[in-house]
Amino acid sequence: MQPLSEQQRAFLQAQRVGRLATADSTGMPHVVPVCYACAADGSAVYIVLDTKPKRVPPHKLKRARNVLQNPQAALVVDHYSEDWDALTFVMLRGPAALLAPEDAEQPQAIALLRARYAQYRAMPIEEQPVIVLRPARVVAWGALPQA
Amino acid sequence: MQPLSEQQRAFLQAQRVGRLATADSTGMPHVVPVCYACAADGSAVYIVLDTKPKRVPPHKLKRARNVLQNPQAALVVDHYSEDWDALTFVMLRGPAALLAPEDAEQPQAIALLRARYAQYRAMPIEEQPVIVLRPARVVAWGALPQA
Repeated sequence: MQPLSEQQRAFLQAQRVGRLATADSTGMPHVVPVCYACAADGSAVYIVLDTKPKRVPPHKLKRARNVLQNPQAALVVDHYSEDWDALTFVMLRGPAALLAPEDAEQPQAIALLRARYAQYRAMPIEEQPVIVLRPARVVAWGALPQA
Repeated sequence: MQPLSEQQRAFLQAQRVGRLATADSTGMPHVVPVCYACAADGSAVYIVLDTKPKRVPPHKLKRARNVLQNPQAALVVDHYSEDWDALTFVMLRGPAALLAPEDAEQPQAIALLRARYAQYRAMPIEEQPVIVLRPARVVAWGALPQA
């Protein structure tokens, strides 16, 4: 485990979208934009399987099937600028799992996501599975603001 | 092979940064923001190993080592909006490879990257390896503008 530092967590808090990479059992990568929230101690990042306009049930989403097949995942949160000296990213890698509504951590995750995104306050996500990614390795690159 | 459609290619052209996911031989994902350029026929996307402020030689970058170990890769290019009805992404997956300066395709890739990014016109990237990702499967989601 390598929890996010205060500075890394502040950077994640300041951004609105990250990109979640998973891979299936054959090692084929998959990557999608995701909304996320961090645990206060930096030990976890949560992503709800909301599938905004829904086309498939949450547990059939490729990101969820990949996590069940291969529990390693990576999330990158970055800031792009045409001034390449200002480019910044934080990438975290580690084990991921699906939290069901019965898991004690799931309602906490939903609360954190709703605190960050007004959009989720209007969506019935209470019963949705949540991907939890526990950072085991964190790479920070570029011009991270000082905490 | 599933080349990008004109509409998908236009969307990629309109964005400035994508996120490249690779995985090592154990299936551990890795994802970083990347600048990219598309071939005119939509059959390839190019990413130069410039490693903006350089810390390691290009071929030692994790993204390059992963491509050599496991040639499957995924790139997502997306548009985030607080209006979630306007969220859009294009994800392409397929085989990736490293192009050396000796490969006929490498100078074409450098020219396409320099046409898109003034920053690259000022950087000595002629001799840098280029990751080529050839889309075999493309997923487009959300509000893609009509071509």
